[in-house]
Amino acid sequence: MDEKEISQAVIGRLPRYFRYLGELKDEGVERISSQDLSALMKVTASQIRQDFNNFGGFGQQGYGYNVEYLYDEIGKILGLDRRHKFVIIGAGNLGRALGNYTNFERRGFIFRGMFDSNPELVGSQVRGIGVMPMEELERFIQENDIDIAVLAIPKASAVPVAERLVKTGIRAIWNFAHVDLNVPEGIQVENVHLSDSLMKLSYNISRYQMEDRHLGEQKRD
Amino acid sequence: MDEKEISQAVIGRLPRYFRYLGELKDEGVERISSQDLSALMKVTASQIRQDFNNFGGFGQQGYGYNVEYLYDEIGKILGLDRRHKFVIIGAGNLGRALGNYTNFERRGFIFRGMFDSNPELVGSQVRGIGVMPMEELERFIQENDIDIAVLAIPKASAVPVAERLVKTGIRAIWNFAHVDLNVPEGIQVENVHLSDSLMKLSYNISRYQMEDRHLGEQKRD
Repeated sequence: MDEKEISQAVIGRLPRYFRYLGELKDEGVERISSQDLSALMKVTASQIRQDFNNFGGFGQQGYGYNVEYLYDEIGKILGLDRRHKFVIIGAGNLGRALGNYTNFERRGFIFRGMFDSNPELVGSQVRGIGVMPMEELERFIQENDIDIAVLAIPKASAVPVAERLVKTGIRAIWNFAHVDLNVPEGIQVENVHLSDSLMKLSYNISRYQMEDRHLGEQKRD
Repeated sequence: MDEKEISQAVIGRLPRYFRYLGELKDEGVERISSQDLSALMKVTASQIRQDFNNFGGFGQQGYGYNVEYLYDEIGKILGLDRRHKFVIIGAGNLGRALGNYTNFERRGFIFRGMFDSNPELVGSQVRGIGVMPMEELERFIQENDIDIAVLAIPKASAVPVAERLVKTGIRAIWNFAHVDLNVPEGIQVENVHLSDSLMKLSYNISRYQMEDRHLGEQKRD
């Protein structure tokens, strides 16, 4: 792979390719053309070719793509050929939901620890992992070579906790708190801002209603 | 507002503007220049101006933007001046976490009902809302004028449940199941695919490690 910068928009689409290719592979499909992949995924064939060209194109267009090869290559690009160990900070409903996703394990993300500042939750278990007090966070991350910290805590505590995480040398933060974190370059942050997603949905509802009304008015003219 | 199509990328950025403007408003800031907003949000001033120009620009550049006006206008564009009633399907940890977000209420999203196919969960409560059996889904949605259904159920059940939802005339589906839903045009779907987000994080970890090693090699040369 060459060293040119690949846009986050392209990266953001890779997991979806990976998911569809995994399903094709499970169904025993060996080759697929960009046209068929395009119809299945409802993106244009030219978008698919452009996206794949960022990584050298993945082989012959005339014969279609080799599904298993493409699946493996995209998996490698996504770093899924390595294992990543993660801890979850926040043992509320969201933290517990994330701890219970066995799907993450299948992709090489290994759930290793859970923390909460609430003494009543300390000692409770999620999939065999006991909730630890926040005082043990730094020691645990360093001793267990944890790569990713998941922040499933409210906005107000997310900022100071992120500062503590930065000092541990953590590689990445998966942030569910509704605040943007300021971390040094080299620490990767991926935000899941649920309210933002809900607002986007709300926009699309309003927009559609407006268009619908507009079309209705046109018809009456 | 004119009728031109606004890209989903622009729409996707609006909630973040809305969040920052809300914080500025709470801090008593009355006006802000695109330069200051740019520095705060770490996006270019030209990006901000381009985004806002989709909606007519929101007023004088020389004097900066009126924070409260801008906050209100973006809120209206996002449809947050209306109330949306939602139900959650799936009373597991994720469904419970979503039911417990009081923040959604503040934005006009009203939690009205919860459903689960597991009889052991039926009757349990989340913020005063009792979990109902799946048989009551259609009747409840229609009688209570529900706009949004939240799918917090596994992939395999998401597709048939979405088909049932379509028939109720629901306006929107907020989908947490790791599958793309095929719904008729006019029903808005917003996906939160958590595994995809985690894979993006994994990509960025690998990429950074590669660059870091590459830089290290260059230094040694």
